[in-house]
Amino acid sequence: MPADALRRLSAILPADRLLWQPAHLAAYQSDALTAFQSPPLAVAIPETADEVIALVRACHAGRLPFVARGSGTSLSGGSLPVKGGIVIALNRLNRILRLDPAERIAVVEPGVINLAVTAAAAPHGLHYAPDPSSQSICTIGGNVAFNSGGAHCLKYGMTSNHVLGLRAVLATGEVVEFGGGRREQIGPDWCGLFTGHEGLFGIALEITLQLLPRAECFHTVLAGYRTLEQAGDAVSAIVASGLLPGAIEIMDALALEAAKAAVHADYPPHCEAVLIVELEGPREAVAADRLRLDALLAASQPVEARPARNPAERLAIWKGRKSAFSAVGRLSPDFIVQDGVVPRRRLGEALRRIGKFSREAGLRCANVFHAGDGNLHPLILYNGRNPGELGRAEALAGRILRLCVDMGGSITGEHGIGVEKRDYLPAMFSSDEIDCLRRIRAAFDPLGIANPGKMFPGGEAPALHAHGPHPLERAGVISRE
Amino acid sequence: MPADALRRLSAILPADRLLWQPAHLAAYQSDALTAFQSPPLAVAIPETADEVIALVRACHAGRLPFVARGSGTSLSGGSLPVKGGIVIALNRLNRILRLDPAERIAVVEPGVINLAVTAAAAPHGLHYAPDPSSQSICTIGGNVAFNSGGAHCLKYGMTSNHVLGLRAVLATGEVVEFGGGRREQIGPDWCGLFTGHEGLFGIALEITLQLLPRAECFHTVLAGYRTLEQAGDAVSAIVASGLLPGAIEIMDALALEAAKAAVHADYPPHCEAVLIVELEGPREAVAADRLRLDALLAASQPVEARPARNPAERLAIWKGRKSAFSAVGRLSPDFIVQDGVVPRRRLGEALRRIGKFSREAGLRCANVFHAGDGNLHPLILYNGRNPGELGRAEALAGRILRLCVDMGGSITGEHGIGVEKRDYLPAMFSSDEIDCLRRIRAAFDPLGIANPGKMFPGGEAPALHAHGPHPLERAGVISRE
Repeated sequence: MPADALRRLSAILPADRLLWQPAHLAAYQSDALTAFQSPPLAVAIPETADEVIALVRACHAGRLPFVARGSGTSLSGGSLPVKGGIVIALNRLNRILRLDPAERIAVVEPGVINLAVTAAAAPHGLHYAPDPSSQSICTIGGNVAFNSGGAHCLKYGMTSNHVLGLRAVLATGEVVEFGGGRREQIGPDWCGLFTGHEGLFGIALEITLQLLPRAECFHTVLAGYRTLEQAGDAVSAIVASGLLPGAIEIMDALALEAAKAAVHADYPPHCEAVLIVELEGPREAVAADRLRLDALLAASQPVEARPARNPAERLAIWKGRKSAFSAVGRLSPDFIVQDGVVPRRRLGEALRRIGKFSREAGLRCANVFHAGDGNLHPLILYNGRNPGELGRAEALAGRILRLCVDMGGSITGEHGIGVEKRDYLPAMFSSDEIDCLRRIRAAFDPLGIANPGKMFPGGEAPALHAHGPHPLERAGVISRE
Repeated sequence: MPADALRRLSAILPADRLLWQPAHLAAYQSDALTAFQSPPLAVAIPETADEVIALVRACHAGRLPFVARGSGTSLSGGSLPVKGGIVIALNRLNRILRLDPAERIAVVEPGVINLAVTAAAAPHGLHYAPDPSSQSICTIGGNVAFNSGGAHCLKYGMTSNHVLGLRAVLATGEVVEFGGGRREQIGPDWCGLFTGHEGLFGIALEITLQLLPRAECFHTVLAGYRTLEQAGDAVSAIVASGLLPGAIEIMDALALEAAKAAVHADYPPHCEAVLIVELEGPREAVAADRLRLDALLAASQPVEARPARNPAERLAIWKGRKSAFSAVGRLSPDFIVQDGVVPRRRLGEALRRIGKFSREAGLRCANVFHAGDGNLHPLILYNGRNPGELGRAEALAGRILRLCVDMGGSITGEHGIGVEKRDYLPAMFSSDEIDCLRRIRAAFDPLGIANPGKMFPGGEAPALHAHGPHPLERAGVISRE
């Protein structure tokens, strides 16, 4: 690490909170997108907002790149270290600064765990709605940076719908505060702009979150279908009916197999897909919606539709769903988690085509996804030790993304662009649009020191390709012009 | 008008859609903030998005300032012409381009009237939620530019919560498109940023709006109170209880007097305030919430609480409320509509203090407001022909705004900064924050030709003070340093 940079930082933090020895850095050299690895120059571990501000100002003064990191659960490499830069680890900024049940807000530091907000709000009958699958470990700072979603975002919206105010240090070292405990805002939606910035604008220091009343009652149904397409069509019918369930999730046969092995879940036999629909709200409303849902499900011809008869059965349904991701690891030594969106009325068609791609590639592909949003999470199974199999897996992932774009969807639903999909941005945006985004980014970070090399396509910043070309490039899906 | 600029524009539009004669310009020289008047150089009346794009590009090439205008209902002077610039009147871009009931979206041009969206969606059981009081005349383009609210924004959020996608021409002439018919987005929330830009970034050409299912059932209660503070405290109790009504509105004695005179509404006698609470949703949920609301209202000790027994009675309650603004005109030759926000739990206190200010100023002040949001709309009554009375009215408006800021609220809830409150921005934001906003603005409009002189404090652009100093400056509330 350059002595000059180290000197600046060591004036801010004691030695035990400024890691620079290779053995200490290893834990920070990647996030949940493990295919990318890149050791940082150093890891700074601030404990207060003032220390974060001082660190960012030192980075700005020394043109030292930095990336903020919470629990490192990014699936797009969003918290991957940037070459020649430091990691600012925010886990110790984990205080809930204020929780006001009357105003229904919580003011939290960026290192607070997502589920800890709901835990603190629960005694007041409130909860924090966005629920990424990683909610027991991911941090609010990361949720804000990537505008995280989750199963219940169908009804409640993404993180950006729940951030009411932000205090942040910009990459310039300026400290700004926008929004607050109110919906109303002045001028453009600065908080919305900052939510989803992927670490390219600065670091959130205090986040004011909206809390919502916990639903009085839940009605959770697990329905098994002979084909995945039937399950997808059932989702389209439910959405079109005007019902607004809290969550609509689908697991396909392979995901079911994994979940069964992991948590011994009991699913209907001979089913290629399971649909989970959860109604939630006041008791009377749920009772009324239940009649409509029953009729819709009956018309969708499931093998079996099984309502949870008590809270324990409801939890078992969700346990199977939430464990599915990690359970897939039992079926295969390696897998790629993909994230894409298709218009929800074309869900059945998308699933059928993904199945075809998967067979053509000769690779198994498990589908576990937020069906109500059309947000797909195909898990492509492969064995990295078999020559060529990684390449085939990447090609399949690329075909699925291309399908999403071609169907009028998106290359990411909730995992973000990060480093994984940055070269794919031009598939979604024109050069004028990307220029506009770059100019906005420059308004926050004229030197380009905040998480450089992420989100925007190629060449802007220190190279990140620890493993050679981008996987999508190797698969021939994208090319550098 | 400069011959050069006129030539550029006349190459785009036929003569009958490019107005420049003083008699034609008069109708455009102010908006609903009538205290400010400033004739434009010319008024361009495009009929297509391509014409708008060509006009903006011509303005950019000629460094000609422009302001986009819909129905001119801005209460903050947002569509006031800018000196030396043109008005681009968007009323003829009034097509609903697409309405997709399955995806629950409408794609509209900027000149579409707010209520026309709901009218088009109604046959599908859907509606567009944000409902400014001016919804029968205001346009979606203006709603987007100012992030408009309305009575039902308590439950459904502001315009920014309902804009899913935007195609816009930036002040640079670039045409960009972000978002779409999905909640998910890539990177920072560009649509949220554009929503509330007050015309300083460019012009929206196509807006994708979220449609929501129309509530199955309404329960509307009108409760009369002996004091305004009691009504305010009832609101705090309802909000704290966890109930989420569709709307919570308050009218004070003076507003009641006006509404009675205008629509012969029948309000409980001897009341200083009327509270309107509307529950909405599925029949069973409303029935259950109604029991809770009845108990809360009983505890708040109203003189009388009167539920609407049928749709006609409900409409009568809303007719009184929605006519209150214009009805106040019957009580006074002149009035100032103010717009501020206080934390909703301090509503009773805020109303008490506004009453005191009003008595001290010797001026009547009617209060009609979105109580559930803490969004106040004091209407200050004065007679401009009485010497000094305008000054006293402005001083009172300024005291009320100052109170909002001091109580931790905001200088605007939904009317925006515009020209009216631009010098008040530093009361809400630090210089770093304003610098950051200016840099973001420059990312869209480096030449500063889109609605210059609005939103940002002093001196940025052509002067707008047709009537001398800013009213708040004359009242001694703000000063130019």
